[in-house]
Amino acid sequence: MTDVDALDDAIDEASPRLHAELFELLRLPSISTDPAHAADVRRTAEWLATRAGRAGLVTSVEETPGHPIVIARHTESADAPTLLVYGHYDVQPPEPLDAWRTPPFEPTVREGVLYGRGAADDKSQVFLQLAAAELARARGALPINLILLFEGEEEIGSPGLSEFVRERAAELRADHVLIADSMMYAPGQPSLILGMRGMAYFEIEVRTGEHDLHSGQYGGAVPNPASVLAAILASLHDAERRVTLDGFYDDVKAAPPELEAAWRALPFDEAMFRAGAGGARAGGEPGYTTTERLWVRPALDVNGLVSGYGGPGKKTVLPASALAKLSCRLVPDQDPVRVEAAMRAHVARLAPDDVTVTVRLLQANRPWREDPDAPLYRAAAGALEEVFGRAPVRVGHGGTLPIAPELRDALSAPVAVMGFALPGANMHAPNEWFPLDHVAKGMKTMIRLYAGLRSAARHNPIQ
Amino acid sequence: MTDVDALDDAIDEASPRLHAELFELLRLPSISTDPAHAADVRRTAEWLATRAGRAGLVTSVEETPGHPIVIARHTESADAPTLLVYGHYDVQPPEPLDAWRTPPFEPTVREGVLYGRGAADDKSQVFLQLAAAELARARGALPINLILLFEGEEEIGSPGLSEFVRERAAELRADHVLIADSMMYAPGQPSLILGMRGMAYFEIEVRTGEHDLHSGQYGGAVPNPASVLAAILASLHDAERRVTLDGFYDDVKAAPPELEAAWRALPFDEAMFRAGAGGARAGGEPGYTTTERLWVRPALDVNGLVSGYGGPGKKTVLPASALAKLSCRLVPDQDPVRVEAAMRAHVARLAPDDVTVTVRLLQANRPWREDPDAPLYRAAAGALEEVFGRAPVRVGHGGTLPIAPELRDALSAPVAVMGFALPGANMHAPNEWFPLDHVAKGMKTMIRLYAGLRSAARHNPIQ
Repeated sequence: MTDVDALDDAIDEASPRLHAELFELLRLPSISTDPAHAADVRRTAEWLATRAGRAGLVTSVEETPGHPIVIARHTESADAPTLLVYGHYDVQPPEPLDAWRTPPFEPTVREGVLYGRGAADDKSQVFLQLAAAELARARGALPINLILLFEGEEEIGSPGLSEFVRERAAELRADHVLIADSMMYAPGQPSLILGMRGMAYFEIEVRTGEHDLHSGQYGGAVPNPASVLAAILASLHDAERRVTLDGFYDDVKAAPPELEAAWRALPFDEAMFRAGAGGARAGGEPGYTTTERLWVRPALDVNGLVSGYGGPGKKTVLPASALAKLSCRLVPDQDPVRVEAAMRAHVARLAPDDVTVTVRLLQANRPWREDPDAPLYRAAAGALEEVFGRAPVRVGHGGTLPIAPELRDALSAPVAVMGFALPGANMHAPNEWFPLDHVAKGMKTMIRLYAGLRSAARHNPIQ
Repeated sequence: MTDVDALDDAIDEASPRLHAELFELLRLPSISTDPAHAADVRRTAEWLATRAGRAGLVTSVEETPGHPIVIARHTESADAPTLLVYGHYDVQPPEPLDAWRTPPFEPTVREGVLYGRGAADDKSQVFLQLAAAELARARGALPINLILLFEGEEEIGSPGLSEFVRERAAELRADHVLIADSMMYAPGQPSLILGMRGMAYFEIEVRTGEHDLHSGQYGGAVPNPASVLAAILASLHDAERRVTLDGFYDDVKAAPPELEAAWRALPFDEAMFRAGAGGARAGGEPGYTTTERLWVRPALDVNGLVSGYGGPGKKTVLPASALAKLSCRLVPDQDPVRVEAAMRAHVARLAPDDVTVTVRLLQANRPWREDPDAPLYRAAAGALEEVFGRAPVRVGHGGTLPIAPELRDALSAPVAVMGFALPGANMHAPNEWFPLDHVAKGMKTMIRLYAGLRSAARHNPIQ
């Protein structure tokens, strides 16, 4: 029996006890967005710190202007590589409650699937990192320096994380950063995420006056802000749904040809895509596959419209204002600052003189993409293949993970994203779930990853 | 002392008692839209019927599927002309209550102005019709047949009126119809309304799927219904804000040249217009004045937009649907049926294949315009000039009064609209008001109108 087989056995043996502990963690309603749950969020941080201390890790609860950050570390030696693993212990609100088959904060297992708020996002994945470190350490199989960093504000946009990491960069110095908060590409098919899109989120408001008017008494004699807004929004795409902002595509960089080829070879199930999209049909920029449209092409989407009367039936109101929320998803090397300038110039050109048009930037995040040959990716790929019996696919992701470029830049280390939830996990929705056996599989992946990294080159060698 | 002077004196003498009665009427919260006030609406109908009976009129409370209609009549002789006066005794809800200086259903007089819900719309005007008929009749000065018809559902769109009038057309047969529910053009400046615009109110819904999606996970790879809707809405006007629906202007008939000239001569105060419009600037179809844009030109306005997320801040949602409410205001001889067909054809041409676009017609009303030389207008003009010392201006109105074309068609008689409220009366808003002395002035106008009609030609002579 090899060391790793013995560790696998130990993981399996410990599983019932570990599941019971994970359920404890899932019962804590650490809803970061709700001030009424602030004490629950802190209790969850303390629960994790206590548990990490028992695991033999050097642990602290670090204050931020918001919810605390838990740091737990194992120091192997000065010349061993350092892996920083990021996760978050806060969760989304559980509403609507009546859509849950079992209560969100009473973890329940049905047919091998664990249900509960945070089961996928991200408590099971946080917990398995802690448990893997504990078991590996106890058996002398943690040959690297490990820093676990668990934040409590991911679901509210990680407002305190960037500053914290920049301020503590020296003590958080790492060679590799793993973001343990995502899902596999398909059941049985592990994956490594190599890049995610950035974002420029805007609000455009068209205003004519202070209050809505009677559409009979004024209709045709004052400008209609909703019509002005519609003309602006309609102008943002051409007839083939390409974005028309000046220079929008100038900085778009193609993915490496090897990845592009791999992505074209990925199975794409149109029917499954459509089912996941609530029946919406695939469609977008001409000349690209759905995968490319999501992973390597930018997009501009209207996220919301509000103007005048939106209730049932009719109201003969002439709105005084019309508001659109819209966001660009950006790919390397697009820069949200340049996109913002293009948006402002575009809207300014179209805004009529007799209305007031305001553009507000609500959020800006750079896109992120890593080298698929980075040591962390190679080590993770080997570990995943051993545990799942299948080489991981290297994928992109259409969403935005602001912490990926932020951690990379603050720590000057390459970032990898790897997770064990499955597609359709109902993250942010009722009946969130996680395959219970993925707790052990995730741990088994991590103990192999530790070993693989030990032999890999260090990214930030001591200077 | 002439007969009419004696009547004027009688009106002035009776005023304190009449005001007290009007206050009683205003205290009844006859809110037709609120089922909780159904008994109050009925009590108001009964109050009016009792009062009309005391005035010597033959009175009935007529049932409809909704709130009752009060009919009160004076029969002079078979060969006298018949005037039907329409008013409504229901009121709008008073909310927001905290915006009222004095409670909405406690009528209060401050500096000669009567405040209360229904003061302008339409209880003072209903009451003065009743009181004028009573005094004239008591003194043998009601030389025509008079039918007062007061409905209790005007504020909810008069759902029962059309059918009632058509069914009772024989007993409601009249030579002239007066709608006693409107306002004067300006303080001291009486007016007669010669036409109002019709309406075609639509809902356009663009739908891609059953539920909203994550804009990162799907953005760029499925159609965005809000962008599709924006393109449709933007296409409904050209760059100069003309409506682009096929044939939209084909049936537009110019107003009589004499009226056009009169309207161009009407004072238009840009600053006052803008203040009334909450600061919005005048602007619209090129080549027309504001007055023309409202009275003789049709318009198409977006009344509301709803899609995705409309709350504060940002939400990265890709909407599954986008909804617009929009309405055309129509002028003679535009036909809402033709406009509906043009709208459906226009939207069908623009709807992409990969989304579902639905057009719903929510309301259709024909425009209405009367001959300014009709006997009722002539008689009313003379009466108004005597009472207010100034000839009335003949005006149009941009709004829609569905009952005007309906009463005209059901009774085959010309319709006139005349009212005594003043601009800015806060109809449908807090602190609704009516100049208290206009109760007497309205009565004095009506007694002159009775006399004037007696000598005018009958529109529907006995056959």
